[in-house]
Amino acid sequence: MSGGPEIEQLIQLLARLPGLGPRSARRAVLHMIKKKEQLMLPLSAALDRAVAAVRTCEICGNVDTASPCSICSDPRRGESGILIVVEDVSDLWALERAGAGQVRYHVLGGVLSPLDGIGPDDLNLDSLARRAGDYSEIVLAMNATVDGQTTAHYITDRLGPGAKVTRLAHGVPIGGELDYLDEGTLSQALRARTQI
Amino acid sequence: MSGGPEIEQLIQLLARLPGLGPRSARRAVLHMIKKKEQLMLPLSAALDRAVAAVRTCEICGNVDTASPCSICSDPRRGESGILIVVEDVSDLWALERAGAGQVRYHVLGGVLSPLDGIGPDDLNLDSLARRAGDYSEIVLAMNATVDGQTTAHYITDRLGPGAKVTRLAHGVPIGGELDYLDEGTLSQALRARTQI
Repeated sequence: MSGGPEIEQLIQLLARLPGLGPRSARRAVLHMIKKKEQLMLPLSAALDRAVAAVRTCEICGNVDTASPCSICSDPRRGESGILIVVEDVSDLWALERAGAGQVRYHVLGGVLSPLDGIGPDDLNLDSLARRAGDYSEIVLAMNATVDGQTTAHYITDRLGPGAKVTRLAHGVPIGGELDYLDEGTLSQALRARTQI
Repeated sequence: MSGGPEIEQLIQLLARLPGLGPRSARRAVLHMIKKKEQLMLPLSAALDRAVAAVRTCEICGNVDTASPCSICSDPRRGESGILIVVEDVSDLWALERAGAGQVRYHVLGGVLSPLDGIGPDDLNLDSLARRAGDYSEIVLAMNATVDGQTTAHYITDRLGPGAKVTRLAHGVPIGGELDYLDEGTLSQALRARTQI
């Protein structure tokens, strides 16, 4: 052990972040210490501010500094009538970065996974059922995994035939090479071909 | 942009740490927010404490919460008479993890690199020359790079023939396979072979 208990503790906590292990956490802390004025002090202040400000939106489950969040409280977002259901806040952010447009979201907080003991009561499904009536289209943007697709089927069943439920298109990713693509995606892309 | 300015700023600062990019910083922040009590609050507190406590040792250049650092102020460390010269604090920590024993260190803060404009005056070389007389052996533990070895030669010249200067052994890394090893290392390992 080098560097005193304060530094060691900081390394151990940083190492628990995804994508960082003990070795990279140590590197990160050393880098911080070397750039104390430019990086460590601002980071410390930013973390304090974020801790104080962060809350989960009571309507959609998004993470923001206000509740309802900026998306739920934006009236223009409601006009499209589109509600996109995602597994996780990170998926919501990814869709926003992709320019999803004037839509609203609903964060499930996970997917159905009997093996992990995650059932319908563990997800934000009741609130989705309540909200769904206010929207003309429910887009299921689950991950293309077995659990994600199971959850999408469950939601489709639960919302019933009255709701217009859609899902994201499957196909060749932009920049993807056919040779490296799995057969499932390729056959879906062929079936869903569009005219140029 | 999602999540409010406080969260966005935290992501941008985290993304400047080595090993983290914008994408992994976003994942890390989301993970933190999900584990606010177990991770975000302790991390914020640990960072505050580290900011307040961290200082650079005035003797050896190590990073610690006291100056002189715990290594320089430990009298047993002086008895061996061994001073290990390293490029960076991270190398000092690596040697400590490897169980270097009761030794002292000197952190140069870099290596000579004419291309990057780093000359002798930019490194802690004067203080090394002052300290060297108090030790019976100076171990040069520079990286096995061109710049590292140039710096080692420079230090050897500067300390003069009176000092006992050694360097780390070159050879086959533990667990390494000969087939994948470069010729330079292999020929060094052959020349420095030892009797079993």
